[in-house]
This record gives sequence, structure tokens and C-alpha cells, in this order.
Amino acid sequence: MTDRAADTPAEPAGQRASRPRVVVIGAGFGGLSTVQSLHGAPVDITLVDQRNHHLFQPLLYQVATAGLSPADIAAPIRAITRHDRNVEVLLGEATGIDVARRLVSVLDTAVRTVPYDILVVATGARHSYFGHEEWARFAPGLKTVEDATLIRRRILLAVERAETETDAEEYRRLLTFVVGGAGPTGVEMAGAISELVRGIAASDFRRVSPKSARIVLVEAGPRPLAAFPPDLAAYAGRALQNLGVEIRLGTAVTGIDAGGVQLGTERIEARTVIWAAGVQASKAAEWLGAAHDRAGRVKVTDHLTLPDHPEIYVIGDTALALDTNGRPVPDLAPAAKEAGQYVGRSIRAGLRGRAAKPFRYRHYGDLATIGRNRAIIEFGRLHIRGFLAWVLWGIAHIFFLIGFRNRVVVMVDWLWSYVWFRGNARLITNVERHDQDEPGQDGIGLAENAE
Amino acid sequence: MTDRAADTPAEPAGQRASRPRVVVIGAGFGGLSTVQSLHGAPVDITLVDQRNHHLFQPLLYQVATAGLSPADIAAPIRAITRHDRNVEVLLGEATGIDVARRLVSVLDTAVRTVPYDILVVATGARHSYFGHEEWARFAPGLKTVEDATLIRRRILLAVERAETETDAEEYRRLLTFVVGGAGPTGVEMAGAISELVRGIAASDFRRVSPKSARIVLVEAGPRPLAAFPPDLAAYAGRALQNLGVEIRLGTAVTGIDAGGVQLGTERIEARTVIWAAGVQASKAAEWLGAAHDRAGRVKVTDHLTLPDHPEIYVIGDTALALDTNGRPVPDLAPAAKEAGQYVGRSIRAGLRGRAAKPFRYRHYGDLATIGRNRAIIEFGRLHIRGFLAWVLWGIAHIFFLIGFRNRVVVMVDWLWSYVWFRGNARLITNVERHDQDEPGQDGIGLAENAE
Repeated sequence: MTDRAADTPAEPAGQRASRPRVVVIGAGFGGLSTVQSLHGAPVDITLVDQRNHHLFQPLLYQVATAGLSPADIAAPIRAITRHDRNVEVLLGEATGIDVARRLVSVLDTAVRTVPYDILVVATGARHSYFGHEEWARFAPGLKTVEDATLIRRRILLAVERAETETDAEEYRRLLTFVVGGAGPTGVEMAGAISELVRGIAASDFRRVSPKSARIVLVEAGPRPLAAFPPDLAAYAGRALQNLGVEIRLGTAVTGIDAGGVQLGTERIEARTVIWAAGVQASKAAEWLGAAHDRAGRVKVTDHLTLPDHPEIYVIGDTALALDTNGRPVPDLAPAAKEAGQYVGRSIRAGLRGRAAKPFRYRHYGDLATIGRNRAIIEFGRLHIRGFLAWVLWGIAHIFFLIGFRNRVVVMVDWLWSYVWFRGNARLITNVERHDQDEPGQDGIGLAENAE
Repeated sequence: MTDRAADTPAEPAGQRASRPRVVVIGAGFGGLSTVQSLHGAPVDITLVDQRNHHLFQPLLYQVATAGLSPADIAAPIRAITRHDRNVEVLLGEATGIDVARRLVSVLDTAVRTVPYDILVVATGARHSYFGHEEWARFAPGLKTVEDATLIRRRILLAVERAETETDAEEYRRLLTFVVGGAGPTGVEMAGAISELVRGIAASDFRRVSPKSARIVLVEAGPRPLAAFPPDLAAYAGRALQNLGVEIRLGTAVTGIDAGGVQLGTERIEARTVIWAAGVQASKAAEWLGAAHDRAGRVKVTDHLTLPDHPEIYVIGDTALALDTNGRPVPDLAPAAKEAGQYVGRSIRAGLRGRAAKPFRYRHYGDLATIGRNRAIIEFGRLHIRGFLAWVLWGIAHIFFLIGFRNRVVVMVDWLWSYVWFRGNARLITNVERHDQDEPGQDGIGLAENAE
């Protein structure tokens, strides 16, 4: 093993000029399924991501509420694509696309340019504050592992501080949690926060009372879970209320600061605010100079390509694709996977000189969970709700988790949590003292970056 | 659940003046076993720690080398002490002790003073650079979750960067890992790094060759594992060499910078350096104005108390206690636990008006692991080595892990890793771009704080 004959880097692979170069930006559900559907195809793929891991985003709220560890829902991209010998993984941030010269700029230790014959843009979305970027430091969103551990830290520290707080007003402020936006993420966060905070207040804290915890879910629209059928959404609302979540519908957030949230003339005093209200697509439209909607999603053809560039596919949350009824394909993980699989088939067809059929989105359903034993599932006309839906939700998520080990570990964790009602990953890490930038944390402050 | 009758904080508990107030600083092995051995005793205990979690430090190197997740080896202090109704947990940093007035200063959101009748100082130790604090940013030590995830990130990023590096010299520098100090931590780190890097280079990377990885373990003393019997230490040295680790004995580190390590006139070019050479006790001696050794360990009586203060116990890595042969009690987790249990018995004896017998350290043994299938165990005269020792090591560690769930999850993880030889927690998180402070990371920099 001490033999260091191979002391110099190997030659870059994939120099066979005859194979088309496919560059995929983003290793989320869309990018990864594109790569997997090109397994064994005579192309040289470069998969670019700024992270070394694929993240199973639908379960990220469980990391934010201490139910799971980051490694339970993330897997190294290199490990996932290990057996795809036509794939190279490049860890770096895409910073631009030169459409005319067919080059992607990637920043790692330096800016490098990666040439492509076929480009797949699957760069996803971030949360959006509708022009109020100053809210970001007071109300983090939930898209990355770091977002999740920051939120976890804020929730747990707020309860810790309430435990020693003698001022009644500040005590209430510390135990008030506001979630902005009642889409699936907001609903799941609100339910999980309520269970976590009331659970640990009852079992682990001496002075904090479970009854003091107040969780408020604020939604500008007329009902929660607008993407779901009304009967399921109404059920979810009732289930949330049973968990002790206050729901404020038709109410827009007009301000957020270190001490609370402004709802027009009303104010809710709160030390912990989570933002789940808006989504903004990545900068792909800007890079491509492409037409896009208000959320920045690139308008694509029915082949998921740019109108003038059949060699550029845009998929997933960063694309505005239409289904056969002319409605936008939803921003869901299964939809991104379908699009990725379509792109794989389309590229294979092109290699054989054939034209691909247009993309037809097949909607299998949608689901959301409320706390640890309620969920709603929409399978077209079949609506399932309650405990059975929750069990199906759990099975579906464990089944789709990438990597066998994660499935087993997550299952053990969930069963254990379910039996004992505990947050297993209740770690406060990366606390920085005297961090003056941190809202409302004067002594023990919080670093903004943490797993 | 929306009833908020208990809208104000509950009255602080434990105001019964007749019960002695015991303050325990530090929830490591020593502090926690003190608290647990006082279960049900008629005392009011305040357990102070700057972390919300107890850390199973003997397995921290597995987090640093991506074998386990932080939550696998950490458990919330409040959860551990949940059923000890005479215990209050205070999250905050002890910053001083007023011995005359019997007060501990604790910083959380503000500085508060906590009065005690009996004080137990179990504040542990940090790594020491022997006066070269400037080495810290280039060569992190391994004491906290954040240390471990920082090291994990540096190791994984170095391999990522090597994958795209075209300069042969920098390629070698990126794949050279130096560990300073061949105590148990250094030996375990060196073995685990070798297996991790060579393993992922073989399976997941396209250009990095396993043969290019160079792991150097530097030790100033004449042999590795000085605390172990010579036959076991010699075996460990051979086992490390079989794993491809170079061992440099009788060699002192004289300098560390962003590009490598200086060993007198010799230089090893390396981008990743880990420090496991020195230990410095906490500031307890300074707070207490107590006599201490060079490493800052407080000299205690055979009752583990300060000579003039029978109400102040000092235990664990922050104390210099002597065994019945006049030799220092080693800085091991079981020794700290024994001391904590002794303190519990001693306090109980005092409550009954009796004097406790002196502390007699009972040495059960010591063990260290080399890679994923070799270990050494010293049970007094019984020396076990090799695969059997490794199995016993694994059983012992799983057995002593706090919390049943962690045991199951760690066992699943280990079995899976063993079968498939994978680092399951290979996440790079908290990468900050253009972090100018980071040594040798010009494009993708690394934040210093992360889980």
C-alpha cells in the first residue's frame, strides 16, 4: 500500500471525440434521474453540483425538527453514480452558460469552462422573500442541510433560553414559533415544531410548559395546501389545529424582524420565524437569456428544451413545463424525476437519429404529512387521509430514499421515535458566542452555517 | 393543546433551603456519572454545560472520517437526565468560580451566578499546540462535533480537489495527510483516514488513485501508543503500516503552515494536517487558584477534592489524581466515570455525616483500534490483538453508547460499512466560498464551524 508508483494524476478520461459530451448541472432529483437514465449510453457525462451530496429534500423538515440526521437523507453523488462509468462528477458551482460557444463556467478552486454538446440544466430553486431579502436573517427557509441545522439550532436554543427566562413577555416570545406559508413545507414544519417543542417541554425541561408553546402558521391565501383537493386540505387544517397549531389564513406577512412578525397592523412577538412562503428558481433563465415566469422558471418546449436550442434541456423546479392540459407541471420530486427520465430517453433517441416524442407529464399523486401520525394523499380521485395515509407516506419515503443503509437507519429511527416520541437528533451545534449579527440572540449567538 | 393557561414561566424548582445545592460543571463522562450516581439523593443538582449534548468522545474519530453521524455519538443532556428529578440542566459556559462565596459564573444570554454547597468540576481538556496556537487553523484537533465535521470536510474536499488537479505537485500535496501525535486518537485517525481515502479513491473517483494517497503519522516519542504495553504498541505499528500509514517516530513537528508540516529540516508537503499530539486541561486550575501540572490538571487529594476545599471536587481530564501506586490516573473515559461514581458515593456519605473512603482507581484496561478490523486491548496482563480485539472493541463501544437508539443505529451503520466498506456519512457541509482565512483553499474555502 506504500507503493506510490501512481504518484501523478491519471489522464482525464473520456477523450474519445466521437462521444457526445453531456453536461448536467445539478444533482437533485432531475439531474440525477437524467444521469441514471443514461446508464451505459455512448455519451460522456459531466455532472456538476456545488454540493458533494444529493439531498432527499422531502424529508429535510425532519432534520430541521431533529427527527433525522443530515446523513440519513443525503448520499454522496459520487457514491450514487459509482457504477455509471460514463459519468464524471465535478464539485463546483455553475456560474454561467455560454450558449453560443456551448460552454458552462464552473467555479471550484478556479473558474473552469466545461464544453458540452448537450446541456441539461436542473439547478432547482431557492426560497424567495418577494423582494424582502432583509427578512432572510430573521426567517430562514428550508432548502439545504445548512438551512435545516440552522433552524434546528434556533428552535432548540429558543426552548433552552425559555427555560431560564424570568421575564414573562420574553418567555412567551421565545416559545412562539411562526411559519410563513402553508404549502407542504410550511404545514410539515408547523406540525413537526409543535410536536417537538411540546414533546421536549413535557419530558426534558423543568420550567417550560408544553402549554406555553405557540405555533402560528400564516398563509396569505384562503386555505392551506392550495395544490391539494379542498377536502384533503381542510382535513390537514383540522389535524394541524389538533396538534395545537394556530392557522391564520388570508393573512400576508408584511414585516419580519428580530422580535417578531408583522401582519399588517397586527404583530406576533416571536423569536423563531421560518419562511416557507415563496420559491424562486435558480439563475438559469438569466444564464440562458431565456423567457421565464415571475418565479424565474424557464419556459420550455414540449421537449423540455429551449425554443431555439434543442441541445439545451431545462427540467425540475427551474423549468416551467406544461402538461397535456396546458397546466404547469408541479414542482415535485416525482415530476423532476419523470422529466429527467424523459431527457435520458430523448438523448438516446437523438443518438439513434430519431426524434423523441413530446414530454407527457404523468401525475401520480401528491402527499403531505401532519405530525407523526397523520398525512394526506391524493392519488387522482382517490383521497386518503389520517393514520393510513401516514403509514403509506412513511413507506413511500423509505422506499425512495437513496441507498439501502439510509433506508434501514431511517426506519429504525422512525420506529424508535414513534414508540418513544423523541427527537433523536436534538443537537445544537456551531453556536458562536457574542455573534452580534444574530437576531435576538445576544449572549449565545448562532452561526449561520452549520450541519 | 391551544390552552395557554400556563402562559408564564413556572416557579424555579428546588427552593427547599434544607437540600444541599450541588453544581456539576461539565456533562462529559465524569460529570454525567456524578449526576447519575446521585439519582434520588436529597440534593438539588445543577448540571452546567456549554453544549446541549453529551458526546461519546471515543468514537469522535469515526465522525471525522465519515463512518458515523454526529447524532450517532451524541445525546441531549436533558434527555439523559430526564428521569433525575433532582437535576436541572443549565446550558451555558462556566467562566469563573468564586471559591470564597461559593458561586459559579455561567454565561448564557447574560452572566448569571449559581450558588453551590458542593461543587464538582469536570470540565475536561482541549488539545494543545505547546504554545504554537498559530498552528490551530492549519491543524485542527479532535474534541468536539465541530472539530470532527471540520476535519471530515477537509479530508473529503482534498480528495475532491485532487480529482481535478492537473499539477502533479499539488496533486500529491492534496493527497498527503499528516497526523501529529501517535496516541490512541492519532493512531485511530491515521488508520481511518487511510481506509477512507483509499476506499473512496478506488470506488468513487475517476482520476485519484488509491496508491497516490499518503498518510504520515508523526510522533515525537520513541514508539506509538506510549500508554500501552510494548508488544501491543508494536503490533499496532505493524497494523498501521499494513494499512499504508507511514510512521515517523522520534520526530517532532516544528512548524505547520497552509502547505505542509516542518519536521526540523525536513518538510512534508500536505494540505491536510490533524493535530492529536497534546492535551491541555480546561481553565479550572486558573478559576480555582489551584496547584496544577504542566498540562493544567488540578492536583487533587485522595478524596478528589481541592486540598483546602473538601466541598470542591475536580475529576476527569481536568484533574491530576493518583492511583494507589502514586501514578497519575489516566485520561480515559472509564477513569472519569469511576471518579464520578466515587464523587456520588462521597457526597451521599457526607449527607449521612460520614467520611468517605479515599478514591481507589481500578484500572480495567485500555483499548485502541487500527482501521476497520484490527484493535489492541490491554486487560492488565491479558493482551488481545487483531480481529478478535476489534470485535470486542466494537461490542464494548456499542454497549457503552448512551441511548438504545444510538446503539442500534451505530450497529447497523457499522455492519453495513463493514460489509460494503463505505463511509456512510461522507457529507461536505458548510463550505464557504472565497473564505480568505482558510489555509490552502483559495476557491472553495471552508468555514471553521460546522456539524
